[in-house]
Amino acid sequence: MSFLYKSDPVRGAQWAQRFAQKAPDLAFRIWPDIGDPKAVRYLAAWQPPDDPVALLPNLEVVFSVGAGIDQFDLSSVPAHIPVVEGMVEYVTQAVLTIHRDLFDYAAQQRAQVWGEIPVRAAVSRRVGVLGIGTLGQAVLDMLRRFGFPCAGWSRTPRTLAGVDCYAGDAALDAFLARTDILICLLPLTGSTRGLLGARVFDALPAGASLVQVGRGPQLDAAALLAALESGRLDSAILDVTEPEPLPAGHSFWTHPRIRITPHIASATRPGTAVDAVLANIARHRAGQPMVGVVDRARGY
Amino acid sequence: MSFLYKSDPVRGAQWAQRFAQKAPDLAFRIWPDIGDPKAVRYLAAWQPPDDPVALLPNLEVVFSVGAGIDQFDLSSVPAHIPVVEGMVEYVTQAVLTIHRDLFDYAAQQRAQVWGEIPVRAAVSRRVGVLGIGTLGQAVLDMLRRFGFPCAGWSRTPRTLAGVDCYAGDAALDAFLARTDILICLLPLTGSTRGLLGARVFDALPAGASLVQVGRGPQLDAAALLAALESGRLDSAILDVTEPEPLPAGHSFWTHPRIRITPHIASATRPGTAVDAVLANIARHRAGQPMVGVVDRARGY
Repeated sequence: MSFLYKSDPVRGAQWAQRFAQKAPDLAFRIWPDIGDPKAVRYLAAWQPPDDPVALLPNLEVVFSVGAGIDQFDLSSVPAHIPVVEGMVEYVTQAVLTIHRDLFDYAAQQRAQVWGEIPVRAAVSRRVGVLGIGTLGQAVLDMLRRFGFPCAGWSRTPRTLAGVDCYAGDAALDAFLARTDILICLLPLTGSTRGLLGARVFDALPAGASLVQVGRGPQLDAAALLAALESGRLDSAILDVTEPEPLPAGHSFWTHPRIRITPHIASATRPGTAVDAVLANIARHRAGQPMVGVVDRARGY
Repeated sequence: MSFLYKSDPVRGAQWAQRFAQKAPDLAFRIWPDIGDPKAVRYLAAWQPPDDPVALLPNLEVVFSVGAGIDQFDLSSVPAHIPVVEGMVEYVTQAVLTIHRDLFDYAAQQRAQVWGEIPVRAAVSRRVGVLGIGTLGQAVLDMLRRFGFPCAGWSRTPRTLAGVDCYAGDAALDAFLARTDILICLLPLTGSTRGLLGARVFDALPAGASLVQVGRGPQLDAAALLAALESGRLDSAILDVTEPEPLPAGHSFWTHPRIRITPHIASATRPGTAVDAVLANIARHRAGQPMVGVVDRARGY
């Protein structure tokens, strides 16, 4: 029984080491050295071979491995690879942090004050995602489950079930006007550089919040500080900054309504992906359902 | 067209006021003064009438309204009433806060340090819920979607899809030994008072975390501080304390690995529930899908 790895060979060597420790009974092969094709039960691939079922007749599970957002090939990889899982976790945590007033409760804890803040129902908290590719869709799909009214904006028109979709520059203001929590998942382009500035913040309802998980140069730092000062924005959760690392002494670090994390929303690394795959293989071999990450070859 | 309210009449009067402001075209009726039964399109009930479809032939939507956890009647109310929604939000936020290392990132932000902490895959982070009634099941149902391996413990045996269920005192240690994030949703009884103490903490894997959303007297404060000191526990998120309010000067307030909120996990109040219902009625009347909270009379 073997595991076939078909992706970057440097990462493949890291995987091989981990498999030798954790699953020594499973032969680990790196493409194109596939050994006996009939022995291959598991395949981890960035681009699967053209006809995996014909080539590998006993293939049971295909794991998708990606290298990072910028290299995403949207046409060939299923949504549930680790980079997506990490982004969904991060953004869900960020939205619930804002929704459940945890900036205020943190301030109260620092002041040793016990005081209840009125709860808003999720149905009255409107979430909007700028950029609705693979990551944006996965994020919206999770946020919908909490009952938040969800919208998405993209440059070209899209249709997503249960999501109010807006497209193009002309629709941007209408999208922003109905958005209490704005999530930026846009790629960095000429037109998104500096986009998160005074014009966008002024188009949001007063007291809106920002979750920035796009790219650092999209955010106008001075405009953000001014919007927090004026109350136009309530709070901001920033996973990307300009520059990165954010230097000590930058005013973002100490702002009580800004949370900074060091570009870790969609973090994935060999250890994470390989451990997830190993844990799933253990489940599969024990006859238990696998979690996330998987695509059955038969349904290919 | 009318809206019929069948629950506590004091809250009913609050609802009536809010409806008069927000949906003046919808006649608001309080049980048993139902007016024309054929006019009733919406029903909000704690205990629905025995045969709602026969009594109210044009009923389209039933909203469940609850009074609070302690009064829960598990047999008659669907899961998605606001108190459950709030608990699911709170616990999901808490689990993701721990899972994505946000205690550490907060410390780094205070120190103005930009440094990535290795991510663990959800599949390797085991979540366990003490108390798997309505709230515990709703919480597990959401956490499963993130890929966390989920288990539950209850006094008497239960079976839940996708959840490893443990029951009774004899199984408690086995449940704790496989739990990296322990969520307490137990009611306060003679046997749960002081339960979250040294014996339970010592049975968890080293570096586990606690999310306490049960009742304050269940937690042994000295044992928690000792477990955080020794590294047995990594962090604790406490929504309930003993006493409440937690007094200024209590050592929990300033502990860097303890987060305190003032018993707000499942907070619900008339404004919240009625606003959620009003927002859903607006969606229903506009032909849009409703969010959460609802149960169609036809499927009753």
